[in-house]
Amino acid sequence: MSTTLTLVILAGLLAVLYGAVQARALLKASPGNARMQEIAAAIQEGAQAYLRRQYTTIAIVGVVILIIVALLIGPLAAIGFLIGAVLSGLAGFAGMLISVRANVRTAQAASEGLEKGLSLAFRAGAVTGMLVAGFALLGVSVYFYVLTGPMDYDATSRDVVDSLVALGFGASLISIFARLGGGIFTKGADVGGDMVGKVEAGIPEDDPRNAATIADNVGDNVGDCAGMAADLFETYAVTTVATMVLAAIFFRGTDAVSAMMLLPLAICGICIVTSIIGTFFVRLGKSRNIMGALYQGLIVTGVLSILAIWWVTNQLVPDGVLDVNGQAYSGSSLFWCGVAGLAVTAAIVVITEFYTGTGFRPVKSVAKASVSGHGTNVIQGLAMSLESTALPALTIIIGIIVTYSLAGLFGIAIATTAMLSLAGFIVALDAFGPVTDNAGGIAEMAGLPPEVRVSTDALDAVGNTTKAVTKGYAIGSAGLGALVLFAAYTEDLRYFSANAAPGSFFDGLGEVAFDLSNPYVVVGLLFGGLLPFLFGGLSMTAVGRAAESVVEEVRRQFRENPGIMTGEVKPEYGRAVDILTRSAIREMIVPSLLPVASPIVLFVVINAIAGKANAFACLGAMLMGVIVTGLFVAISMTSGGGAWDNAKKLIEEGHFGGKGSDAHKAAVTGDTVGDPYKDTAGPAVNPMIKITNIVALLLLAVLANGALG
Amino acid sequence: MSTTLTLVILAGLLAVLYGAVQARALLKASPGNARMQEIAAAIQEGAQAYLRRQYTTIAIVGVVILIIVALLIGPLAAIGFLIGAVLSGLAGFAGMLISVRANVRTAQAASEGLEKGLSLAFRAGAVTGMLVAGFALLGVSVYFYVLTGPMDYDATSRDVVDSLVALGFGASLISIFARLGGGIFTKGADVGGDMVGKVEAGIPEDDPRNAATIADNVGDNVGDCAGMAADLFETYAVTTVATMVLAAIFFRGTDAVSAMMLLPLAICGICIVTSIIGTFFVRLGKSRNIMGALYQGLIVTGVLSILAIWWVTNQLVPDGVLDVNGQAYSGSSLFWCGVAGLAVTAAIVVITEFYTGTGFRPVKSVAKASVSGHGTNVIQGLAMSLESTALPALTIIIGIIVTYSLAGLFGIAIATTAMLSLAGFIVALDAFGPVTDNAGGIAEMAGLPPEVRVSTDALDAVGNTTKAVTKGYAIGSAGLGALVLFAAYTEDLRYFSANAAPGSFFDGLGEVAFDLSNPYVVVGLLFGGLLPFLFGGLSMTAVGRAAESVVEEVRRQFRENPGIMTGEVKPEYGRAVDILTRSAIREMIVPSLLPVASPIVLFVVINAIAGKANAFACLGAMLMGVIVTGLFVAISMTSGGGAWDNAKKLIEEGHFGGKGSDAHKAAVTGDTVGDPYKDTAGPAVNPMIKITNIVALLLLAVLANGALG
Repeated sequence: MSTTLTLVILAGLLAVLYGAVQARALLKASPGNARMQEIAAAIQEGAQAYLRRQYTTIAIVGVVILIIVALLIGPLAAIGFLIGAVLSGLAGFAGMLISVRANVRTAQAASEGLEKGLSLAFRAGAVTGMLVAGFALLGVSVYFYVLTGPMDYDATSRDVVDSLVALGFGASLISIFARLGGGIFTKGADVGGDMVGKVEAGIPEDDPRNAATIADNVGDNVGDCAGMAADLFETYAVTTVATMVLAAIFFRGTDAVSAMMLLPLAICGICIVTSIIGTFFVRLGKSRNIMGALYQGLIVTGVLSILAIWWVTNQLVPDGVLDVNGQAYSGSSLFWCGVAGLAVTAAIVVITEFYTGTGFRPVKSVAKASVSGHGTNVIQGLAMSLESTALPALTIIIGIIVTYSLAGLFGIAIATTAMLSLAGFIVALDAFGPVTDNAGGIAEMAGLPPEVRVSTDALDAVGNTTKAVTKGYAIGSAGLGALVLFAAYTEDLRYFSANAAPGSFFDGLGEVAFDLSNPYVVVGLLFGGLLPFLFGGLSMTAVGRAAESVVEEVRRQFRENPGIMTGEVKPEYGRAVDILTRSAIREMIVPSLLPVASPIVLFVVINAIAGKANAFACLGAMLMGVIVTGLFVAISMTSGGGAWDNAKKLIEEGHFGGKGSDAHKAAVTGDTVGDPYKDTAGPAVNPMIKITNIVALLLLAVLANGALG
Repeated sequence: MSTTLTLVILAGLLAVLYGAVQARALLKASPGNARMQEIAAAIQEGAQAYLRRQYTTIAIVGVVILIIVALLIGPLAAIGFLIGAVLSGLAGFAGMLISVRANVRTAQAASEGLEKGLSLAFRAGAVTGMLVAGFALLGVSVYFYVLTGPMDYDATSRDVVDSLVALGFGASLISIFARLGGGIFTKGADVGGDMVGKVEAGIPEDDPRNAATIADNVGDNVGDCAGMAADLFETYAVTTVATMVLAAIFFRGTDAVSAMMLLPLAICGICIVTSIIGTFFVRLGKSRNIMGALYQGLIVTGVLSILAIWWVTNQLVPDGVLDVNGQAYSGSSLFWCGVAGLAVTAAIVVITEFYTGTGFRPVKSVAKASVSGHGTNVIQGLAMSLESTALPALTIIIGIIVTYSLAGLFGIAIATTAMLSLAGFIVALDAFGPVTDNAGGIAEMAGLPPEVRVSTDALDAVGNTTKAVTKGYAIGSAGLGALVLFAAYTEDLRYFSANAAPGSFFDGLGEVAFDLSNPYVVVGLLFGGLLPFLFGGLSMTAVGRAAESVVEEVRRQFRENPGIMTGEVKPEYGRAVDILTRSAIREMIVPSLLPVASPIVLFVVINAIAGKANAFACLGAMLMGVIVTGLFVAISMTSGGGAWDNAKKLIEEGHFGGKGSDAHKAAVTGDTVGDPYKDTAGPAVNPMIKITNIVALLLLAVLANGALG
């Protein structure tokens, strides 16, 4: 095993070790009084029951696909698929396990002070973050080691490439189910619970008399935590794999090939170390600015990562300028690509905070519009959600131009890798959100003093922004990585076409052009473009249906058991959780399979109508189309949702009429609308884009295998 | 003058004659009692005052651009620009003039029966429709005749092509201002008036005590009527011009060139005749189904148009199969392309009715969701708005594949022309909406018996669907026409590059490829993709601001003059109109200039960074990007808005709780949200797409002129 690979694997192990140590420390904290523990136990039970059922269902779909992959591509790819799927599921499950234990401890800690609450909640987030990054890095690097070491496959061989891509597919498939199922669950509970509780019964959020409260808290853990963890695992794994595949293709036959294939792994490995260091710098200063504390850690991580990437590129990339097929590469040009990736991350963080933070024009304008009513709140929120796409898109455009000018497509890939290498820290920022959200719920239900709720609310408001940041980051990396995945597709196609056996599917295909003046390319762009819209529509409808089932159940309990309203009888929390579980799992199947089936159907149809070359061109264009609209749909949904949520928070802080005013009611409407936008439909677009791309890559592998040819 | 061109010009004159005759007949109808006439006079005055100011402002921008066009391209192009701009403005103005006179007469006729109301309102719509089609056809065909006849320019020369494109630019520029300015005015009045009237003061819609009522009625005329007329004028003119330009490029040097250039004009001409015939078939049958009556006319027009297009293609296109540059054309293949265009129109009408009609799942689901509250109404509306994009996009995809297979890019162009050739009838369907909306308002304000309002409301509900249909039709034709405009761009580029003088800008450029594997192509797609989102965000915000100014004014009048509320004193309607006029005109400037400036800025920046070839590729991709996201944004906004509006209507008919219920309040919120969606931001995306494309074409012409080279 090369020293680099050893170090990378050690870095992955370090992340897991960090997670284990921090988790132990976390579990030692006080879980509060008996009432709090009782509530927390109910949440734990519900979350575990839901995830068990979700993963069981996914496993059924997964096994079917596993068999298909094994038959059509081969056993190594099937093993890759299995590794990706299992680790992705594991990352989500582990995140949930921590999160359902950290919530009650954070509630307890917050009762002792804001600083303790922040520290505990962030620690929980950091555990999830490091496990996500660690599992992903270990999955890719260990499997790569096994394939190229003991099994002695050539690193650039199709066996290795296909197996790694299949690993990405496994991760993506789990992640879209987890994102969507979790998203439907959490927002069904949230929307349904609010509607029947706040609006109909007139009881506050998280009131223990509402049968949906436990389900709402379960939702935070299975959606915002487990779903998000699976999503980021997927993003991390797919980006690393795609960069490695691109390195294998571009540098095949040169001396630099192994260094270039290891470069993404090395960047991810070293940035795990910088992320871990960064976590120790998250400390509430004298200003008691929570966002400031988080930024402090992020800035430390970012600055250290620049140095680390400089060191890694200089160590790995051969001295001097490498010229491969007319593109020049050097250690310094690749280093600057890495810096550009970090700069894109920083820009997206700043832009997202601008659009979702309570201190800036967009959220203020939504809060102000609430004064004139529900309608104007929603109009202004939609206006901001549309507007919020422009700057991130420009950032990505500039990122593409700069990194492509520096080192071609591989430069873009390295930038995307550098961007994702901070995933450990970014996930930590995100995962602390659901923990504080839960802590607030537990504080309310357990009847802790109102100051505790003030602390958890302050943490939660920041959580809204950091959650939007993570989503912007994930989708931003998809935008930047779009060209990488597309390049992998075109280069694979070129390779298969050039090396086609006589009579095989690719024989005589020649060079496929993806020129916009070919109508089949436009057809592909439009077909790809419609997927995020249709997917968004389907998932919003699913949340609506899930919420309705909750409303009916809570209403039934209020009706059949008047003691609930008077507080004499406890509602049957478990039934609400059960109903939502069934509903979410039923609703997640069809939308999740849409991106799996679409590339295949499109290819088959266009192949029948217009022949292979047009079918490949159309499929390629579809990959681009799904990114072009998906990027905007996802950003508008996640930023818009964050803005609505925080506009409500701003009013609750006493602005524009304060709690209980008509403006507040209008803001609650906006928040409700934003919920499925930002936590179900929007974030699921990211894995959707990836799946479409990966299925296309695997389709090429299958066709090359002659199984369909 | 060729016989064909003579006949085309006669068809244009026939349309104008039809308009004049029907307008005369319309003006003979009774304008109702004194109170009604007084109200109508106030609306007339407000609408004329607004349009005068709007067109004065546009004229200032227009003159600047006229001078730039004259200096950079030449006097012929400048004259073309002027013709397009003036006729587009005239179409809008004429539509408004008819509409503000038809409203009160429709109110009077509706008091005599639904059938009379429908007949009068549809006649008013038909006048606008035929004037739009007639002016557009006359503008293009007469200028083409002057250039190629008396002035003796070769039909395929750059002078003719550039002049026609400039004509399209003039039309587009006016149309985006008119769409946006009118849209902001009308929805500012509508949203603002509803908020302060229905929500705050608790008085019904169109109550004469609300100072914004006249402004609301003025808005219907300047937005839904004048703005829409300018928009469809633009769509019609640009499509015809683009098809002619493509014919000039593809058939240059062949015998068929003049026939092929006249083909789009001939199709438009003959379909004016079929549209006029169709208007006579709009009659309320025994079932008293209003939509059925309109469909009857549309179906007659469609069937006759199939025959007419068959006759025209067989007359014009030379017998046998024409082979030009490897693409085969024949009379029958072009005929089938025309049929495909009509089929796309039919499909879009049916799909739009499904998504916005009160009898189908989508609107019912939004109405049902209103029962659980404001939030769920908006969530379900957004879900439907996202979902509603899929089938129209698939229709366009199938249209592209079928027509391209039949006769290449020119086949797509002919299909788009055939689609647009029904514009006269489609505009008639649309323009009857604002007339009935106004009639309802006048009936309410003049205190006519409630039965009258029932009739006008029934007409208005159908108007919501037909308005959505027109918008879907306009944007659908833009989607289908996307490739035509893109082809015009690429072919122009190829021509300039091949015929470049040594040392000129295009010298040594070679063939520009628009391959998706070129990152600058992806940059262009993303940049183009962000425009509809940003534009949508800006225009939604503009409506919000305009509405706020109305709310403040109406509140002020209520406060300072308590007699208004008791009905003793009439509010100052004129002030509300004035305030909105200023607000709408101020707000329309920046968003309208976005698509004008964007292509130029992008080209200059990328040219500086990455050279000419990449800059041209990036600009071309931008044109495609703006269509790919614009199509979805526009359809989702217009269909979603229609669904919200009709969900409210469905509840008002007594379903899900009926008028005054909580569900109704929630539905009013959805309707308010849908207003700027469907009447401001959504429809303005269509001219925005066209402007971007036409500015790119003119940029090529300017660069070719050596002025910048």
